[in-house]
Amino acid sequence: MPAIAYLECSRCQNQISANKYETVCPKCAGALYVRYDTEALKKTATRPEPGGSQSMWRYASVLPDVSPVTLGEGWTPILPSRRNPNIFLKEEATNPTGTFKARGMSMAVSMARHYGLKKLAAPSAGNAAGALAAYAAAAGIEAHIFMPKDVPFANYLEGVAYGANVTLVDGLISDCARIVNERKEKEGWFDISTLKEPFRVEGKKTMGYELVEQLNWTYPDAVFYPTGGGVGLIGMWKAFEEMEQLGWVTGKRPKMIAIQASGCAPVAKAYKEGANTSQMFENASTFAAGLRVPKPYGDYIILDIVRQSGGTVVDIPDETILDSLLDWSRDEGLLLSPEGAAATAAYDHLIENGFLKPRDKVVIFNTGAGLKYVDMIAEAMGVTRPNSTKLPERVPVGGIITPQ
Amino acid sequence: MPAIAYLECSRCQNQISANKYETVCPKCAGALYVRYDTEALKKTATRPEPGGSQSMWRYASVLPDVSPVTLGEGWTPILPSRRNPNIFLKEEATNPTGTFKARGMSMAVSMARHYGLKKLAAPSAGNAAGALAAYAAAAGIEAHIFMPKDVPFANYLEGVAYGANVTLVDGLISDCARIVNERKEKEGWFDISTLKEPFRVEGKKTMGYELVEQLNWTYPDAVFYPTGGGVGLIGMWKAFEEMEQLGWVTGKRPKMIAIQASGCAPVAKAYKEGANTSQMFENASTFAAGLRVPKPYGDYIILDIVRQSGGTVVDIPDETILDSLLDWSRDEGLLLSPEGAAATAAYDHLIENGFLKPRDKVVIFNTGAGLKYVDMIAEAMGVTRPNSTKLPERVPVGGIITPQ
Repeated sequence: MPAIAYLECSRCQNQISANKYETVCPKCAGALYVRYDTEALKKTATRPEPGGSQSMWRYASVLPDVSPVTLGEGWTPILPSRRNPNIFLKEEATNPTGTFKARGMSMAVSMARHYGLKKLAAPSAGNAAGALAAYAAAAGIEAHIFMPKDVPFANYLEGVAYGANVTLVDGLISDCARIVNERKEKEGWFDISTLKEPFRVEGKKTMGYELVEQLNWTYPDAVFYPTGGGVGLIGMWKAFEEMEQLGWVTGKRPKMIAIQASGCAPVAKAYKEGANTSQMFENASTFAAGLRVPKPYGDYIILDIVRQSGGTVVDIPDETILDSLLDWSRDEGLLLSPEGAAATAAYDHLIENGFLKPRDKVVIFNTGAGLKYVDMIAEAMGVTRPNSTKLPERVPVGGIITPQ
Repeated sequence: MPAIAYLECSRCQNQISANKYETVCPKCAGALYVRYDTEALKKTATRPEPGGSQSMWRYASVLPDVSPVTLGEGWTPILPSRRNPNIFLKEEATNPTGTFKARGMSMAVSMARHYGLKKLAAPSAGNAAGALAAYAAAAGIEAHIFMPKDVPFANYLEGVAYGANVTLVDGLISDCARIVNERKEKEGWFDISTLKEPFRVEGKKTMGYELVEQLNWTYPDAVFYPTGGGVGLIGMWKAFEEMEQLGWVTGKRPKMIAIQASGCAPVAKAYKEGANTSQMFENASTFAAGLRVPKPYGDYIILDIVRQSGGTVVDIPDETILDSLLDWSRDEGLLLSPEGAAATAAYDHLIENGFLKPRDKVVIFNTGAGLKYVDMIAEAMGVTRPNSTKLPERVPVGGIITPQ
């Protein structure tokens, strides 16, 4: 595992030391990237062996030198679809806590323990909370979590079960972020929010390494990524850059397709308007809870990457997300998260409008398990709980039978 | 992939052909095992390569010759615990549909498609339903599922989302089984119930291959297995026998520890009484839904294996299961299923009473994701839904905040 050379600001390229757990650029508040000595890395970093670690730590040679807090995250399956062998689903549901958030939190909590931090805090649209709570529990570190009060129940319950301090907020993730920000100094919390520290990106970058390795060290034509905070997309782009420097992959980088929900589409709006940053999206609302981020901190990075890559930003209405979710569950046997189903819907959209061809090789990220959204999917489908007195009406069920 | 030589009855050793999809022994109704030509297998079967398939199909050389219906099941992580490096958790939550049931259903539905079946039916305590529904959807086969009406909501919702025909029954899995049995002939359903066909065992046996491979082709001292229908335990024992015949492993087989819930403990009762079969367990009740099987079809096999192995059967009260679930979530960062937590509780019990020593190397199966039991875990913890009007009282939360 390589030493960190320095942290670099994604906006003003300011370089600072990694002697302590830094937050954002002290000059311009830009998000920080971890940088290594590339020449040294070329000598030490090696592509993982086929029989190596079955977790994201198989890429230890390009990750910070730290003792990992691991629950078996990463190295998730890449599944060719039944409908078209050029569509690969990257199934992040198999991660600990059921989502891709595990990768970032495994890395960030490992670094928090390394730097001796005792109390971590974060706002969350849902899944980051569960992941933070789990890794903090594994590391013996306190977690303080603020979530909108209407997050999926699974997100709430897991936070509580892992022993985190969970506070529900009558507002959006932006309100939660403000509360963390207001209290952190007094409480002695380290703010581990999306892109307000450099290591969650560093964990998420392993998604980029993995998809390239799983495609035999080649790039696909496009990557579909449901984009709330956008850390995964940012991390993958960083991975591609590093892999090219190391000579692990060559060729044209994939078009990066950022997917948002129409009910909360700040990046899509900025993209269409040709803007370099987004505006706060008012009255954000979507059942894809992870996409309910009305003003992503890394909007400027996301927009830059999408444009550099020749990709695009698509926003999908909730009804279309649900249709695609049911399409994939009934025809592929995969219960996607609403965020993942937004991405599969976006694929259909971009085939329909000719942006992509069916022969293009694409990787679509299902960022989490549909099982974490049982209540929201049920509500969207109009299915009621079977142990309530009201019977399901809109679904093909046989009713309740009382045996004689 | 080897040809099937014949099917063998687990009770009377009757041998029948595998020319069609058989159910149980036509002579004595015993469960059937798949048998291969051992001498031929010795020439063709090979230990999987480290870089081979990252699913249970890495063991294709010892599985029936079939085109797999696969969603990426198996090859799940084996995680050393934080409390004791001799305790390994076999994390089946990472399977498609979040449980170990995926292995058996991947195999059985593959065979169903191979034999040209069009309609499958099964009773389920919950998780088998989700797995059957998913694999049937992937294979384009009809699924008819009967579940107790108080199954975890996730099990109900996933069945419906995958497009299965789901009927809720005001009774136990035994009532559901009776209904399938009564209707199957008229409806043209193939009954894919636990141990009433030979291929779910054949899929589940991969758990035995995996744990041995993951321990560098050695046996642990004991295997802890939450036992409802017991197919996994039966499958693992079959795997051990096959691996020994192939020379893939040697040494003393592990003690097999079958774990039940005290509220539904037919096998534990039979074991204590020295009986060879179990009696119907009246008024079965436990929040570990997968253990609510009041009279397992393979009770005679389970009891025989436990005794042969020098293991034991333990039953755990629901309160102790919940304590262990919270212990593992708060100290290990793993949200176990109630069934998995029954197994971790059983470990503590057998250390306390001296049956095992802390230096013994053990593998504990977490058969499913705690996330599938959100409603039941919440109820057991006394946590209410955050979007209800009632606030959580028994848990350390910060309450609901309305931003100014």
